[in-house]
Amino acid sequence: MENRYFETLKAKDASLPEQVAEQISQLIVERRLESGAKLPNEFELAAQLNVGRGTVREAVKLLVSRNVLVIRRGLGTYIASRPGQVDDPLGFAYYPDQLRLSMDLLEVRANLEPWVAGTAAQRATQENMDALREMCLLVERDILEGRDHLAHDVEFHVRIAQCTQNLVVPELIPIITYAVGLFGKLTGNSLRSETIIDHRAIADAICAHDPDRAEQAMRRHMELNRAELERVAREQRGEIGR
Amino acid sequence: MENRYFETLKAKDASLPEQVAEQISQLIVERRLESGAKLPNEFELAAQLNVGRGTVREAVKLLVSRNVLVIRRGLGTYIASRPGQVDDPLGFAYYPDQLRLSMDLLEVRANLEPWVAGTAAQRATQENMDALREMCLLVERDILEGRDHLAHDVEFHVRIAQCTQNLVVPELIPIITYAVGLFGKLTGNSLRSETIIDHRAIADAICAHDPDRAEQAMRRHMELNRAELERVAREQRGEIGR
Repeated sequence: MENRYFETLKAKDASLPEQVAEQISQLIVERRLESGAKLPNEFELAAQLNVGRGTVREAVKLLVSRNVLVIRRGLGTYIASRPGQVDDPLGFAYYPDQLRLSMDLLEVRANLEPWVAGTAAQRATQENMDALREMCLLVERDILEGRDHLAHDVEFHVRIAQCTQNLVVPELIPIITYAVGLFGKLTGNSLRSETIIDHRAIADAICAHDPDRAEQAMRRHMELNRAELERVAREQRGEIGR
Repeated sequence: MENRYFETLKAKDASLPEQVAEQISQLIVERRLESGAKLPNEFELAAQLNVGRGTVREAVKLLVSRNVLVIRRGLGTYIASRPGQVDDPLGFAYYPDQLRLSMDLLEVRANLEPWVAGTAAQRATQENMDALREMCLLVERDILEGRDHLAHDVEFHVRIAQCTQNLVVPELIPIITYAVGLFGKLTGNSLRSETIIDHRAIADAICAHDPDRAEQAMRRHMELNRAELERVAREQRGEIGR
């Protein structure tokens, strides 16, 4: 199947470095250069794309700022580890109402993640299950030793997503769990023991290849998070004790 | 709820322009500068952030390349229309197997969009319904007049998502419909009349505030798309006529 994405970009009126950046992107895709592969040097690119080295340099800068390329000083220019992906790709940090954003994200998760858990139970390989169990333990250890468990918590959900063998789902999880980090401090310790119980139930059901049980366990976990977020929201609105 | 996103960014070791870019991002959020608002000029920013104007200029460039700011020549620097959002935020254009990507995206859509349609039917306002009907007509006109209807098709699904009143769902739709543009040319005209029928059924059910019917109609639409993509996949594998 032909990759038509960069063609549509060309249609917009773009500066010369922009156009060259798109030609380099096209070249990365055509030559199937993957993460960690080295980009041809400035001289080669300038000759091949028929532009000056200054333009190539500007184009490379643009692609670095978009996380497509990384420059290793003295070594050369390489394909980034997750080319084209950015932190916070939907610009959630710029939303004025972060509490509403959190509730809306949780609504999306509540509708997507039970399906993800069910599908994970159907398709998980032994390798997937080992990776999931490992992350389950890391989250538990963080909690029991009083550390911040949020990074491992997100990774636990990503590893469930990896069990589905679907390429897209593991990429969506970090986006829709964006809010976890935001309200983590507020909800504090209250959910820690429940998180351990929920996560174990989910991991057990997936490893038992039991889709219904995995879906149910995830649904309960999402419901717990939703209830806690609503409690925080009421508190913020000063409605506590009414 | 406090916005902690930019604080976590500061923790990473970043260049001075990077750090200033994050301070400017923080300022945009704190002052609730929204799309189209003007950024304070270089002098003010330099004085306020206690750095040189050259650094401010570098930081602004970084934020332009991330679609947070736009420079209007001779006028000043403004907040972009969807700050922080990029085209193709997950870097799908860099995936080597575009056919598998399309199938995996469609699996996600098949699990998310029926819920979106059902929720849309419950929450759509009159304004939402008018906007949805309008786009339904534009897609039909494209098809009947033999034009490419893909841009309007994606927008139709975005407008359904807007009916949910959830902030996140309309942002997810363009990401997960990325593949539509990719295999549109391949599936060609075959789905055109079915698209008209499906879209009308979905829009009618939403406007009748009938969640079950909206969900069913969307499920059928997704199934149609899946079947067509599988046909294309078989063709690509040379299995046609077996």
